[in-house]
Amino acid sequence: MAAGRQHDLEEVIRVFEMRPIGRVRSPFKETREIPKGCGSRHEAEGVLEVLPELERGLTDIDGFSHLFVIWVFDRSQGSELLGTPPNDDRPHGVFATRSPRRPNPIGLTVVELLRRDGSRLHVRGLDMLDETPILDIKPYLSSVPPEKLRRGWLEEAEARNRARGS
Amino acid sequence: MAAGRQHDLEEVIRVFEMRPIGRVRSPFKETREIPKGCGSRHEAEGVLEVLPELERGLTDIDGFSHLFVIWVFDRSQGSELLGTPPNDDRPHGVFATRSPRRPNPIGLTVVELLRRDGSRLHVRGLDMLDETPILDIKPYLSSVPPEKLRRGWLEEAEARNRARGS
Repeated sequence: MAAGRQHDLEEVIRVFEMRPIGRVRSPFKETREIPKGCGSRHEAEGVLEVLPELERGLTDIDGFSHLFVIWVFDRSQGSELLGTPPNDDRPHGVFATRSPRRPNPIGLTVVELLRRDGSRLHVRGLDMLDETPILDIKPYLSSVPPEKLRRGWLEEAEARNRARGS
Repeated sequence: MAAGRQHDLEEVIRVFEMRPIGRVRSPFKETREIPKGCGSRHEAEGVLEVLPELERGLTDIDGFSHLFVIWVFDRSQGSELLGTPPNDDRPHGVFATRSPRRPNPIGLTVVELLRRDGSRLHVRGLDMLDETPILDIKPYLSSVPPEKLRRGWLEEAEARNRARGS
């Protein structure tokens, strides 16, 4: 049974080709400029430049205050299953972190939509490099209530960092 | 200037190949079984089956109550820039909806992690078809406060539907 299941699982693994719908214009030219780690705030403003031929797909997006941006870590090399994030001294599994070195180099960022100018979305909250390719944009519809949220190793690392006074 | 900018933008458009890290086991065998539209609740339980060789990447994921799952609408055909979602009678831009018919057929779902069993994550809140390919899993770290959220056409459609008593 187990072998059968694994065989099935391997079978569905095929390649999907994704083509960017646009790119990010951000103030960050190099990775080290991007605020990272537990307490970092992402207030950087910039533009999501969508391809002009896709502009109709942005119809009515103006009414949403926040958007999900799905993008590619196009300057990240390789992947590692275990890695030590900034502001922690312990390794964690890649799927429990936002590490760029992932099996599929996909990034996800929530941004605040400030205004739309045709196919250009002016946003706040960027944490991507300038010229990052964008794969998709979706409306942010609802939140998990904070009282229902547990944040695993991150809460523990924050507590350790507070205890150290850092 | 404008022409120059557009030229640059076209230049960055290249293809990225994504390879699933696993698949969803869900109770939904057909699209029409999935609850859709404004008031729909996603309480369906199932399993995220990650490839056994990637299990180390799940280390410490158990501490998180909620996860982002990034996946492929692998049974969706084509894309349309404007479409009319369920529970509304007006068309909206694809990037302002969760339509499966997107330029890149990428889906995004927030699930509640119930428990981990090796490389299998038992979760609640699925809205994908059974055997949906998974591209990435990320921890859910923070929420936009509800008082800061505006939900555009969706709020308007909900109000119209309430007025109709539907």
